Amino acid sequence: MQDDLIKNLCVSNKRAVARSISIVESNNNESAVLLKKIFPKIGNAHRIGITGPPGAGKSTITNHLTKYYRKQNKKVGIIAVDPTSPFTGGALLGDRIRMSEIGQDEGVFIRSMATRGSLGGLSNRTVDAADVLDAAGYDYIIMETVGVGQSELDIARSADTTIVVLVPESGDSVQAMKAGLMEIADFFAMNKSDRPGSQQAIASIQTILMMREHDEKSWMYKIIKTIATENKGIDNLAEEIERHTEYLKMNNLLLKRREEKTKSRIKDIVENILKTELWSESGKNSLTSSLEKVELGKISPYNIAEEIIKNFKNHKLKQNSH
Amino acid sequence: MQDDLIKNLCVSNKRAVARSISIVESNNNESAVLLKKIFPKIGNAHRIGITGPPGAGKSTITNHLTKYYRKQNKKVGIIAVDPTSPFTGGALLGDRIRMSEIGQDEGVFIRSMATRGSLGGLSNRTVDAADVLDAAGYDYIIMETVGVGQSELDIARSADTTIVVLVPESGDSVQAMKAGLMEIADFFAMNKSDRPGSQQAIASIQTILMMREHDEKSWMYKIIKTIATENKGIDNLAEEIERHTEYLKMNNLLLKRREEKTKSRIKDIVENILKTELWSESGKNSLTSSLEKVELGKISPYNIAEEIIKNFKNHKLKQNSH
Repeated sequence: MQDDLIKNLCVSNKRAVARSISIVESNNNESAVLLKKIFPKIGNAHRIGITGPPGAGKSTITNHLTKYYRKQNKKVGIIAVDPTSPFTGGALLGDRIRMSEIGQDEGVFIRSMATRGSLGGLSNRTVDAADVLDAAGYDYIIMETVGVGQSELDIARSADTTIVVLVPESGDSVQAMKAGLMEIADFFAMNKSDRPGSQQAIASIQTILMMREHDEKSWMYKIIKTIATENKGIDNLAEEIERHTEYLKMNNLLLKRREEKTKSRIKDIVENILKTELWSESGKNSLTSSLEKVELGKISPYNIAEEIIKNFKNHKLKQNSH
Repeated sequence: MQDDLIKNLCVSNKRAVARSISIVESNNNESAVLLKKIFPKIGNAHRIGITGPPGAGKSTITNHLTKYYRKQNKKVGIIAVDPTSPFTGGALLGDRIRMSEIGQDEGVFIRSMATRGSLGGLSNRTVDAADVLDAAGYDYIIMETVGVGQSELDIARSADTTIVVLVPESGDSVQAMKAGLMEIADFFAMNKSDRPGSQQAIASIQTILMMREHDEKSWMYKIIKTIATENKGIDNLAEEIERHTEYLKMNNLLLKRREEKTKSRIKDIVENILKTELWSESGKNSLTSSLEKVELGKISPYNIAEEIIKNFKNHKLKQNSH
């Protein structure tokens, strides 16, 4: 069954792509089987993370960047993980119409991922979905996430090139997440750069960048000015993505960075498999029965946790010896 | 050793409190021992979560609420998990001075928790720290967190009473996190309520509240107007906390809700213990050796994850049979 699906997937059949991502989102056994099978086909796409505060214009940039790549006859896959994105709802009607336009294009695939109800696992599902798009032959995969919260940052971090989109007036709201956003950026887009305060905002980012210790000293961080609504600066943005890609390749960093990311991804997968086993029927029953003791308010959660782990190990011990 | 510490802790000795929280933050074996020992002493404090977007005035509210309780001769413990909070840095100098003033008070204990570097574990550490303050006899424990990100929401959710602080102009930025914030609120504070748009912002929250399905239909959600910088509305806020506490007690919900929270806390503790075991020396070696295969780019992360789990279980099997 899956073999047919994979065959269709690898010729960018949109229905097969959609179906495969749905399988991956379900995160069950079928998902792991599919991901193992498509693994030899991945590694060709360049993955771009676009993140920043709500309202910075990430979707508009994604929209125009996609059109730019389409003119070069490149195929683009988009994964939107953003409660304010036109893909996932919450945006202006105009945005939504523009987006559905590029979605009609045979060479563009758009998928939105829900942020709710997938606690902790969201970044894994998104990377899995990017693997599907990669195997399907999309040349660029754009992952758009709002830069708040750990899992959103994890997604942006999983990209080869990560762009942080800021706006002149976002100074304050960015405060809170500054540390996280500054660290994951390969470069910045100062969007709405025709607005007052733009030069000052750029200067303050430059100050922060100068104070920051650089791991990769040879990389020169740039701040690209854009006015996304007028399609201004998008070509500069695309050139900077190109420059970053070349930089990664020249310094042998593309594979090295992907390996680092694979390492932490494996860690996540391992932890998720164990969690699932832990809270399967036997684990749940142990929790329920242990909790009756907590209701008495006499035993510390730490004692109860230790008991659950003891039960889990004994259970696994029995399973393994059969 | 710990017994002396606990004795001093239980008479609200600030040094013992500080030392105990440091132990708890380290999250090692000593931490679990301490938390087990103080467990019988906890459950008397009322825990208040204060959350909302950056710049909404959470710290100023915390500051004045603390003074209000001090006038009633109640002791207050404050845990600030907020990158924009004066406790953790990033705030105006004036805020910082005000805060250090209440910190001088013998009946007030302030502790800031770092949001960085404690991925996933932050909410556990915060609840542990709240347990320490509870055992130390603080009557009110205020947990102040910025309402972005999963672990910050988890912290606010761990409180008995959760207040979401909004400002008239936060409408847009709140969009992104609306779902999460609306669900955890027991009531709202509309701060800076003298600013234009205040009435409209209140009306829109009321609309959202009406659309929301209520689990606890008998609880009437209120929106309290405050101007924290002028100490206005703080008494109404304190009265609403009191009304909510009474509501919880009258409906037998205080214990019930605490039990629910303990349940998910036990789950977290169990998962963290297993994770620690997993990535201990033997786990790490298995990951490193397995990763040499990934570098070849021929084996899927899912295959490697399964191998690591197999190794982990075999290892545990051997340990358990000795």
